[in-house]
Parts: sequence; structure tokens; C-alpha cells
Amino acid sequence: VGQPVFSNDQLYATTPIGVVTGLAWTSMGGSTLYVEASLAEEGEGKAAVKATGQLGDVMRESFSIAHTYARGFVRRRFPDNHLLERGSFHVHVPAGSTPKDGPSAGCTVVTALLSAAMEQPVKPSLAMTGEVSLTGRVLPIGGVKEKTIAAQRSGIRTLIFPSANKRDYDELTEETRAGLEASPRRPAQASRPTSSTRTTKSSSSPSA
Amino acid sequence: VGQPVFSNDQLYATTPIGVVTGLAWTSMGGSTLYVEASLAEEGEGKAAVKATGQLGDVMRESFSIAHTYARGFVRRRFPDNHLLERGSFHVHVPAGSTPKDGPSAGCTVVTALLSAAMEQPVKPSLAMTGEVSLTGRVLPIGGVKEKTIAAQRSGIRTLIFPSANKRDYDELTEETRAGLEASPRRPAQASRPTSSTRTTKSSSSPSA
Amino acid sequence: VGQPVFSNDQLYATTPIGVVTGLAWTSMGGSTLYVEASLAEEGEGKAAVKATGQLGDVMRESFSIAHTYARGFVRRRFPDNHLLERGSFHVHVPAGSTPKDGPSAGCTVVTALLSAAMEQPVKPSLAMTGEVSLTGRVLPIGGVKEKTIAAQRSGIRTLIFPSANKRDYDELTEETRAGLEASPRRPAQASRPTSSTRTTKSSSSPSA
Repeated sequence: VGQPVFSNDQLYATTPIGVVTGLAWTSMGGSTLYVEASLAEEGEGKAAVKATGQLGDVMRESFSIAHTYARGFVRRRFPDNHLLERGSFHVHVPAGSTPKDGPSAGCTVVTALLSAAMEQPVKPSLAMTGEVSLTGRVLPIGGVKEKTIAAQRSGIRTLIFPSANKRDYDELTEETRAGLEASPRRPAQASRPTSSTRTTKSSSSPSA
Repeated sequence: VGQPVFSNDQLYATTPIGVVTGLAWTSMGGSTLYVEASLAEEGEGKAAVKATGQLGDVMRESFSIAHTYARGFVRRRFPDNHLLERGSFHVHVPAGSTPKDGPSAGCTVVTALLSAAMEQPVKPSLAMTGEVSLTGRVLPIGGVKEKTIAAQRSGIRTLIFPSANKRDYDELTEETRAGLEASPRRPAQASRPTSSTRTTKSSSSPSA
Repeated sequence: VGQPVFSNDQLYATTPIGVVTGLAWTSMGGSTLYVEASLAEEGEGKAAVKATGQLGDVMRESFSIAHTYARGFVRRRFPDNHLLERGSFHVHVPAGSTPKDGPSAGCTVVTALLSAAMEQPVKPSLAMTGEVSLTGRVLPIGGVKEKTIAAQRSGIRTLIFPSANKRDYDELTEETRAGLEASPRRPAQASRPTSSTRTTKSSSSPSA
């Protein structure tokens, strides 16, 4: 009580390969968080994802969904890249003692896994939020206002929201949005997000 | 409270391979839902199904039953198709944070697995509901009225109900049924549902 | 309340290979149920049984006992039949959302597994009930009267009870027994039940 729930805003000056900035929403307000993906083991039949960071059931499932989607995406688009097919990946969300839950880091985990598998870092000063379905559809999330404020406070310049959250974003004051670009989210573009359309729509999801 | 429990009605304009529209029934009324099946891994002895989407025990079992039936069905009818014998499939039901339960998505899961295994999409604007037994018999389900209303609201044109629910369907007003065709359900016809007989019968099942 | 607990009496007009009719006993009265056994996977070292249908601990154990007994029985009597030695079987008891418990489906599960392994259907209009020990001894069960009424109502013509339940059966009125034959149960005869001796004895089992 009285303490920020997530206090690792400054953990990375620039995000290395496998690390992507996400956005969380708590009763205390919004916050940035980091999703870190790292190859643990490689070999025939090793494909797996292991998640740590005091994650709740919904978040754990969302990591598994993100992993299945990322595997299929690489299989279809980059058939010569076998890292997700042969690699056991460990995905962690610091801080290790802060309980976290909710499906909205799905996009961030897909992107972290793609970044690790393709060995390319994600564009700096980018943050994203959005639930991912097994086929890569992006579902709306909650806490758009709180997450936008947190992104701005942390020096984020490009924000990726589900397009279904556009209305929520449009309702924000100019001040809240100052210095930010918001992009519609397509996981397929995850590892090279270059678009900058200002689009987000309404959501009725209750959790983070 | 006052919020729709499932809000992803518009997640798909048209359902791709492996995705089938189902119908759910909650205390808030009916709703469409999507069952998404995706190949996670292929190899000798990998046959398995993994389910996510905050599913309760009954729904988890219904996925396992649907998987066993779909495997046997493909083994008997399409002996050259080994995808279900060699593939580990991930089946997800968005939204990831909405708890779901009940056996009535059995038919939908069988169809999603057959669609994924046979790499053929299911006819668009089709929705189905029905519990499946291990031999492919279809058991009656609850909430026929609520599910019919939800299907109509979501632009569904063909509805597949258990034949044991025919009486429930026949009791609906013409207005509720407007624009809908209802078909008796045979999982064996799942991936090519072309029939359109207006038949559904009575049910005494209490759950969704 | 006021609803039948098992409403799938008419699920099968005639039982296919692997499906056997059992009898259940609830506070609401007796009921028929179906035990469905289906080969899920075959291969060296795959022998296993997987059970679904919201089964309680006692029923789950009774399935495992039935599986061990059926494997040994086939090994001794039909040494050329390796299906139970190499096959992973899925056994389901519809309806999927109705919780069930108790050991008295043991005989029914043995018979369903033998039917599946030997690829022979069980004689139609036959129902059975009886707890099985690991060596195939049949223990008495409860609810003889309720189960007899349910069998008669469902068009069952031959009823197999534990011989220890003979006295319970003999105490029934002629009307209750009208049209029924009752046979003493030997699992060894399970897949070809041709006897029709009218014998059943007393039981002290409390559960269904």
C-alpha cells in the first residue's frame, strides 16, 4: 500500500533481443512491464515455453497461446528458421515477486518470442498491449487511459493497442496523448512495427 | 454486471481453417464463441490436445472426448491423413480471461479439429452446439432459445443443434427463428455441413 | 431437482462395438447409463486407460481395476490379441456434465474394454451392474430394485447382476421383473453373454 506495484520502469534503457515493453493495469494505475524471452535449450523435440514472474492462470495460458501462435507464424513465414521448433524458451516478467495476471500481454509475448527466434531487437521506445487469440487475432484490453499515462511517463513514443480499443483511445485528452503515436496491432507485424496510424477502439474487457 | 460476458462476436469476419463458431449460454443470455484449433507440433507419438481459455473440468473433458472421436473418425474415413495421429493440437476459446464450462462445445471442437486436420475451412455463417459422446453421438444441450437469439444477432445463417433439441427449437417464435436454418447434427458431416433440414428436439440438460 | 439425472437412455438404439449399457442408482431412482470404450492410440508401451465423464475417485479407481483385469484376461485367454497390451483406451460415460461415482460400473467397463479389444459388439438389450475385484470376482451392489425398474423402462431384456444380489432380486414383485431375465455375472463371459439363469443374491453395498 502506497508502493508502486511495478517499479521496474527503468530496467532497460533500450530493449535487447527478446525483450519487449508491455503495459499493465492495476488498481494503483497503469505501469510498463518487460517481457523477457530467452532460449533455454535447443534440440529435436524440445519446443516448449516456460513462464516465470508470479503469473496467474490466465496469464500463463496467454503465454502458451502466444507460443503456439508464434511457432505457427515462423513456420509459415520463415520456414528456414527452426528456433521455435527446436528451442525451449524461458519467458520471464520482472519483478519476480510481483503477482501478475490477465491476457493482455499476449501480443508482447508473441513479439518477444519472435524477437528471440529471429534474433532481432524490437524498435526502442515502443510499448504494446493486447490479448492474442490462437490464430493471431487481437482482442481488446482494459485500462487504455491508465496504460497510456504510464507509457508517456516512461518515455514510450509508439504505443500499440488493439484496434477494438480505438474509441477508448480517442476519448483521451490531447494532454494524455502528447508525444505518443498509437498503432493498430497486428501480431504478424510484431517484430518490425513501422506503421503509425492513430487507431484504437472501444473495449468492454474487465481485466488486465 | 451489465457487461456482455463474451464480447468477441466480431473477432472473425470469416472463419479460417481450424476455427468454428459455437454457442454459449450464460445467466446473462446466449452468446457466440469461437473454438480455434491450431497444430502446435508434429511428430511420431505426438498426438495430443492442449486446451486453453479458462476452461472448467467438464469443458476440458469434452475437449478430450472430441479429440478421441475426431482421431478415430479420420483414422476410419481418411486413413491417409495422419495429422491427428502425429500432431499435437492446441485448442483455444477466446476471450482468455472469461471462465467457461459445460460439454456443449463438443461438436464445435470435433469440427475445429477436423477442419485443422483436413486443412479445409468450415462454411461461413455457420454455428453449432451439441455435446458429443466418445462414439460421436450428439447429446441434447440447454439454452436453445438464448443460443438462437445470439446466433441471429451475430449474423449466423445456419445453426446446427442436436436432434434431441428439436422440440425446444420448434417452440421458438417465428421472429426468433427469422433468417435461420437449423440442421440436425452429425459430427461425421462436420467439415462439410450442407444439409439444411429444419429439425431440433427437446432437451432436459441443465447446463451450458 | 425434478429432472432426470441421466437423460441419455435413448442415446443408442443398438450398442456398437465398445459400448455397453450399465445401471446407475441415485437418490432420484435408477437409470441406465452407457460406458463407451474407444481406442485412442496404439503402439509399443502405450497401454493405458483414460476416463472422462465427471467421475469420482471410486469410479476412477474402478476403471483402472477393470482395465488391469481385462488386460490379464485377454493375455491369458486370447494371447494373440495385443490390443489391450498396445492400446491406449479412452473410456467415457455420458452425459459429460453429470457427476458419477461408485464402483458398480466395474463389470460394464470390463465388458466395454473386451468388446473394443475383440472388436465384437455386445448383445443388444443387455444391461449389467457389478463391482469387479482385480481378479475378476464380482462384488454385490446397491439399488437392485431401482436399477431393475430403470432397465425395464429402457427396454432392457437381459439384466446381469452380481450373484450376491440374488436375494434382492428375488424379493422384487413379479411386475417389476416382468419381461426381464437376470443373469449371474462372470466378467470372463462378458463379451458373449448367452446364459440366462435367473439368479441374483443379497447385497450390502451402500452406493451406486
